Amino acid sequence: MKAAIVAVGSELLDPLRRETNGAYVTGRLREIGVDVLARTCVADDAAWLEAAFRDALARADVVISTGGLGPTEDDLTRDCAARAVGRSLRRDEGILEWLRARFARFNRVMAPVNEKQADVIEGATVLPNARGTAPGQWLDLEGRLLFLLPGPPGEMQPMFDDQVLPVLRERAGGTVLRSRVLKIASMGESDVEQVVAPLYKTFANPRTTILGGAGQTELHLTAEGSSVEEAEALLEELAAGIRALLPGRIYSEDGRELPEVVAALLRERGLSLALAESCTGGLLASRLTSVPGASEFLDRGYVTYSNQAKVDLLGVDPKLIEAHGAVSEEVARAMAEGARRAAGADLAVAVTGIAGPGGETPGKPVGLVFLALAGALGDRVRRAQFPGDRERVRRQAAQAGLEMIRRAALGLSAG
Amino acid sequence: MKAAIVAVGSELLDPLRRETNGAYVTGRLREIGVDVLARTCVADDAAWLEAAFRDALARADVVISTGGLGPTEDDLTRDCAARAVGRSLRRDEGILEWLRARFARFNRVMAPVNEKQADVIEGATVLPNARGTAPGQWLDLEGRLLFLLPGPPGEMQPMFDDQVLPVLRERAGGTVLRSRVLKIASMGESDVEQVVAPLYKTFANPRTTILGGAGQTELHLTAEGSSVEEAEALLEELAAGIRALLPGRIYSEDGRELPEVVAALLRERGLSLALAESCTGGLLASRLTSVPGASEFLDRGYVTYSNQAKVDLLGVDPKLIEAHGAVSEEVARAMAEGARRAAGADLAVAVTGIAGPGGETPGKPVGLVFLALAGALGDRVRRAQFPGDRERVRRQAAQAGLEMIRRAALGLSAG
Repeated sequence: MKAAIVAVGSELLDPLRRETNGAYVTGRLREIGVDVLARTCVADDAAWLEAAFRDALARADVVISTGGLGPTEDDLTRDCAARAVGRSLRRDEGILEWLRARFARFNRVMAPVNEKQADVIEGATVLPNARGTAPGQWLDLEGRLLFLLPGPPGEMQPMFDDQVLPVLRERAGGTVLRSRVLKIASMGESDVEQVVAPLYKTFANPRTTILGGAGQTELHLTAEGSSVEEAEALLEELAAGIRALLPGRIYSEDGRELPEVVAALLRERGLSLALAESCTGGLLASRLTSVPGASEFLDRGYVTYSNQAKVDLLGVDPKLIEAHGAVSEEVARAMAEGARRAAGADLAVAVTGIAGPGGETPGKPVGLVFLALAGALGDRVRRAQFPGDRERVRRQAAQAGLEMIRRAALGLSAG
Repeated sequence: MKAAIVAVGSELLDPLRRETNGAYVTGRLREIGVDVLARTCVADDAAWLEAAFRDALARADVVISTGGLGPTEDDLTRDCAARAVGRSLRRDEGILEWLRARFARFNRVMAPVNEKQADVIEGATVLPNARGTAPGQWLDLEGRLLFLLPGPPGEMQPMFDDQVLPVLRERAGGTVLRSRVLKIASMGESDVEQVVAPLYKTFANPRTTILGGAGQTELHLTAEGSSVEEAEALLEELAAGIRALLPGRIYSEDGRELPEVVAALLRERGLSLALAESCTGGLLASRLTSVPGASEFLDRGYVTYSNQAKVDLLGVDPKLIEAHGAVSEEVARAMAEGARRAAGADLAVAVTGIAGPGGETPGKPVGLVFLALAGALGDRVRRAQFPGDRERVRRQAAQAGLEMIRRAALGLSAG
């Protein structure tokens, strides 16, 4: 089965807006083996909208529209879909009664304009909306299916999950898709690709996609099976192979991000952590404290942006800074040890580097970052050279600081 | 002139991917008065892609496609567009020569598969690509224009700006659109709406849209004129009216975000700043240090997550915490004054609050935040109750801390 999505509303064509219903519907359809081949955002224009329905129905087995079911003059979905399929609209007495009762419940009288929300295309089945005033509807056009759903995600998603998906799952013949995301923090996209491509390319099912970000590479595996169990088994077979090729590199297969994983490791071990940040300027602390309950393991952090702050707060020897520079292995080590001691914590991580765009010195280019760990999980230091602009360097450095804790907690090499 | 955009590529239909070329093109077209009425992402499927071109050309005066111009079998844009307009492709010798020379420059021999990048629809004008191997092309179909542009934004955007926009601007008859964004940090979307809607609703031109985020409200004004000067004058007329209704509330009209504005104010005044953060956990420091050159005014920050950290690092009296709780006006004041003194800075900002989901106590709900300022810009304190989840509360609190500095620096009330 091939599907097309029509998202209705002039506001969706605003460059600042992001249309999100299409991605939601596409993802859910994939799980039942239905591919979306086209997704269109169309303005509140009767001629364009009618044509969009006609075009989509000319090719797709399933057309799903979102939006344009409200009571105002701009809400044209019902009218245009009816014209596109050559049928008339009828006013549904049941919906009218339900609408009036709903307004009465909020002590309001329904304005006449709302009555058009009770219009149903001849032959359509109504999809009740428990969360708003716009019911959906669907039509079986000799095997081609047309669904009209409301635009607000809070109304569309439950209607899609509870009322649309069961219809489609039955028609799609029971194929199920399952996905898994393997997340890696310590290797770039091309390095991961080089190691795992020879393996995953031998698998037609699951399909594998690589996505790279600042300090993160993700492998998205999607398997198709006749049952959830079969699809999961196919996923596990490939995931096991990838794990063997990337020992210790995958930090999450269950959707968790790196701060959550690190927080769990520290909690399990009952360890307290202190942070000393220069170039990341609080970003590492901010990421860790985004995890609820971070106070269980994080008691304090130092943003030591200037050399004097490193001396005052962390007890770094000024002569060390003079001899090696603030961006050096020696100062990173001294910052970590100083933070651990000053905070009375079990361990500490320090980050010092050149985020750019300025600050470069001979032999120390923008993107050079030293990371150090001191205390209960052993002493480590790492020199990294990150590509990209200021924000990218900072994000990669913070991620590397988190990964350093994870690897030490699991007894893995510094990486 | 009405436009349609066709974004080509199966990967664009991945729920995890975001299609960005459409928004870019829509925004640029608006500036010259061309409205986009439909935007379609279509898979690398010959039948669907050909139909997408045919459908778009049936309605739009201008059709702009991005992507699908590469050398692989999946790159179908040239073939499908040619079929949709009923013309044949010819292999362009000039492009072939240019491609061979480009490969030679990188010491590579061009594979035969690349030759298809030299295919041009009969009658089309070639759009050279200085940044990649895929040239664009465009066709005038009796007044309807079809542009085929490459997919990578780094190639598409300069080609669009330098080679497509001038053609369209001339055809659009000289209408220009100009936009301005007024940014506000200290009022929510509905409060801003209530104050300014009675004014902006009296203006048909400029049009005004309100967008709200965590700790930020934006008013987007777009004016249409026969010249840049006329459009700018219309923008300024409405902007002046809004400024009068929101005295001191608008922190930026030039695209800058709040950290940049605050950084500039501190630099101009030669003031040094220290930070003491509890619930924001480094987020305020991280946002300020995202501004290049932040070291000129920020020397250090304290993430004092625990009560003991507040006592040790900021010299807060433990009795004060015992008497009022860590989330209190008194402790916020003591944190700011302590940070200022400990850092030897001209001023300091402190944030203490309950980000949630846990940590609530009687009379102190999740979202309660105290902010304090101490030192050179005067002493201030503010109690705020922010809605939303942990991340939303943290983001609003960090934004409020920045706004507190801005208002004090400009001599505005605490707000």
